[in-house]
Amino acid sequence: MRRPGRYEELLETALRLFREKGYRATSMQDIAAAMGLRKASLYHYVKSKQDLLVPAYQYTIANHARRLEEIASSAGSAREKLERAIATHLQAIIDHADMFALYLREVESLPEHLRQAVRAANRAYRVRFEAIVRQGVETGEFKALDPAVAALLILGACNWLPQWYTPGGRMSPQEITDLFLELLLTGLLNEGGRMDAYRSLHQADLGPRDLPAGVQDRPGAQGRGSGHGVAGDRPV
Amino acid sequence: MRRPGRYEELLETALRLFREKGYRATSMQDIAAAMGLRKASLYHYVKSKQDLLVPAYQYTIANHARRLEEIASSAGSAREKLERAIATHLQAIIDHADMFALYLREVESLPEHLRQAVRAANRAYRVRFEAIVRQGVETGEFKALDPAVAALLILGACNWLPQWYTPGGRMSPQEITDLFLELLLTGLLNEGGRMDAYRSLHQADLGPRDLPAGVQDRPGAQGRGSGHGVAGDRPV
Repeated sequence: MRRPGRYEELLETALRLFREKGYRATSMQDIAAAMGLRKASLYHYVKSKQDLLVPAYQYTIANHARRLEEIASSAGSAREKLERAIATHLQAIIDHADMFALYLREVESLPEHLRQAVRAANRAYRVRFEAIVRQGVETGEFKALDPAVAALLILGACNWLPQWYTPGGRMSPQEITDLFLELLLTGLLNEGGRMDAYRSLHQADLGPRDLPAGVQDRPGAQGRGSGHGVAGDRPV
Repeated sequence: MRRPGRYEELLETALRLFREKGYRATSMQDIAAAMGLRKASLYHYVKSKQDLLVPAYQYTIANHARRLEEIASSAGSAREKLERAIATHLQAIIDHADMFALYLREVESLPEHLRQAVRAANRAYRVRFEAIVRQGVETGEFKALDPAVAALLILGACNWLPQWYTPGGRMSPQEITDLFLELLLTGLLNEGGRMDAYRSLHQADLGPRDLPAGVQDRPGAQGRGSGHGVAGDRPV
């Protein structure tokens, strides 16, 4: 019943419609029509629109994680790589603002196996982003700041965009990206010499491959009520 | 029936318990016991725990907005003021991580009058934070970056904390604050001379009292489905 590639096409179509019309305003009928299918045929693949949300989210994150990997392994300075990583991330956030806002609201009500799937996708993305920051710290191009927390600061600033960004506002996505790059990269760049920073990093016993200080990888696993369930599912 | 000051005491007690036990794990009985009241007496003030959420949120935001106002009008450089504003904000986020995470999930299901109340509280806070950034841009101590978007970047980086911060993790709140200050302030500081930046700001016709470029004040008012309802209710 399922043809290879057809499910991916379904996810991409759903994502495009969620982006263009918003998740709530998109119906299964809309998705079927856009794919040239009868609505009934969609039910070979998914039971409901809600069943598309997590796979579409994972699919998006995985695509962007691959882009981060390309960026990390490309030629160029750490600064150039991080510029591309931030620009890519901001573009993803702007393109999928609706889905990210939705995700924040819905994640806690997902069944545990879906939460775990989302968590794994987020972690894979975050680790790749962090690796780019870490490269710059290791070469001394960036300051000897904790790469994990620096990455979370940058991702957080970007991830907050759906709370305030309005398409067609007076500042274009490019202008916002330029401001973000200016602010975030200047703070990270180590103007005071490469080797000094590298040495101080190792003196501080904050080896680049240590676990991120202060950031537990699965905070959701520990107690203290409702709020901390979210922490383990942190979006990218 | 309502005594002056008693309602504020109720909000503070509820906030403290939400913080200590989490919102979900806190019962009306817990709140009554902490105030030395019978549970029935609470119902003179509120109908349900949910009725405490928005007032408690507003009350917290308003308190912190007053602190920002004190910081803005205090003596000191823009850098010192912004350091205090960021540290204050991070502390609020860490203290109330549970409430902020809850807010993000619940805000869309609030009735319109409560959303408006929350929106007004958020806007008042954001405007005060932005004013501190703007002071630094006006004096040339900061780069001539758009103060509204710079403020949203900083607030966003901080507001993302509940997604990844774990109390008792390897990095203390103070260490996280230090890293944030290092990264965010260095990027903002104008090392290249005060007056140059001030002039270029005015040449670019981005006068400090203009509306924030690209950031509409009430994006929720315009269409495009569900996602954009959130934008107008952006948390602090």
